[in-house]
Amino acid sequence: MKLYTTKVAPNPRRVHIFLAEKGIEVDCVEIDLGKSENLNADFVAINPLGRVPVLELDDGTAIAESVAICRYFEEGQPEPPLFGTDATDKAVVEMWNRRMESEILGNVSMCFRHCHTYWEGRIPQVAEFGELCRKNVLERMAWLDGELADREFIAGDRFTVADITAFTGITLGRIPKIRIGEELSNLQRWYDAVGARPSAA
Amino acid sequence: MKLYTTKVAPNPRRVHIFLAEKGIEVDCVEIDLGKSENLNADFVAINPLGRVPVLELDDGTAIAESVAICRYFEEGQPEPPLFGTDATDKAVVEMWNRRMESEILGNVSMCFRHCHTYWEGRIPQVAEFGELCRKNVLERMAWLDGELADREFIAGDRFTVADITAFTGITLGRIPKIRIGEELSNLQRWYDAVGARPSAA
Repeated sequence: MKLYTTKVAPNPRRVHIFLAEKGIEVDCVEIDLGKSENLNADFVAINPLGRVPVLELDDGTAIAESVAICRYFEEGQPEPPLFGTDATDKAVVEMWNRRMESEILGNVSMCFRHCHTYWEGRIPQVAEFGELCRKNVLERMAWLDGELADREFIAGDRFTVADITAFTGITLGRIPKIRIGEELSNLQRWYDAVGARPSAA
Repeated sequence: MKLYTTKVAPNPRRVHIFLAEKGIEVDCVEIDLGKSENLNADFVAINPLGRVPVLELDDGTAIAESVAICRYFEEGQPEPPLFGTDATDKAVVEMWNRRMESEILGNVSMCFRHCHTYWEGRIPQVAEFGELCRKNVLERMAWLDGELADREFIAGDRFTVADITAFTGITLGRIPKIRIGEELSNLQRWYDAVGARPSAA
C-alpha cells in the first residue's frame, strides 16, 4: 500500500493527522505540487483529477479524496473511532464533518484560491467570490465559537474527523489572513487544544 | 422520527431517492423555502444553518446534511448497500460520492446560485464565478462520460449514493441550462437508466 501525498497541502494534512491519531504508518510517495508532478501522466493515470492524496492498495485500487482514504482506515481499524460509534453518533459526526468542510475548510480554501497571489496564473481567479468566502468563514467561526461553549470538540466530547477538518481549515486560513477573532475564546481554546495533540505536530 | 424537508430542492431530493431505494418511509414536515420557513426561529433552533433536510430523531437529536441523514439509515438498514460493502468498496463509494459532489452537484449548484435570476436579491451573486462553475461542470461531464464507458454506475456495477448525487446534480443543471452534450452517450445512457428507477419518480 502506498500513499501519494505532499507535505504542504491541507487535504493531505487531514489524512496525515488521521493516521497519526490511529497510530497507523503508511509508505508515502511525495508528489511535488510546485513542480506540477500531480499533472504528470503517471499520476493522472492514478487520479484523473490530478489531486493528492491518493491511496494505492496492493491490488491496484486507487482511492482518492481525503475522507475516502480516512474511511478506508477507519473500517480496517475502528479504534479510536474517528467517524463515530453507533448509527446516531456516526450520523452526527458526518454532519459536523460536512459542516466543517462547507463552512470552514471550503470557504477558507476558496478565499485562498481566489484571493492569493500564489494562484495567479495557475487557476482562473474571481477575487470578489474569494472575498465573499472570507466574509462567510468569519461569520461561521463566530457561530462555531458558540457551539464550542458547552462541549470540548466539534462533534461532541470526543475528538473526531470533524476536528481534523476544522483544524486544517483554520490553519490554512493563516495564508489568506483569516484569523480567529480575539473575542472567540471557545474556538481559540479548541484550536489550541487540537494543535497541541501529537497528531498535529 | 421526523424529516424536515421540501419537495423542490436538490439536497432533500437526494434523501428522498435514498429512502425510496431502501424502501423506508418517514414522516415528513414540509418546510416552504419560498416563504423562508427555513429561517423561522423554530427551524433555526433545529438547524442553525437554516437548511433542509434535517432528520429529528425521537430523542431530539437533529441530524442535518443530506449524506449524514442517508448514513443514519444505511447504518440501521444496510440492505441494499448504498455506501458500499467492505472497507475497499466503502472507500471507493465515498470517493465517487465526493467527486460527484465537488465536480457535478457542487459546480451546478454554484452556477445556479450565482447566475440565475431566482437568487437575485436573496444571496450575493458573483456571475463570473458562476460561469466558471458552468465551464467546470461541462468539462467534468465529458470526463464522467469516459468513466461510464465500461461500467454501469458511477462507483462500479451497483447503484450507490454516488449515482444519487450525480443524478440530482445533472437534473438541477436544467435550471441554469447545463445539459448533457449530445456526444456524451455513456453519460446520457446512465442518466436515463437512473431516471427510470422508481426512486427517481
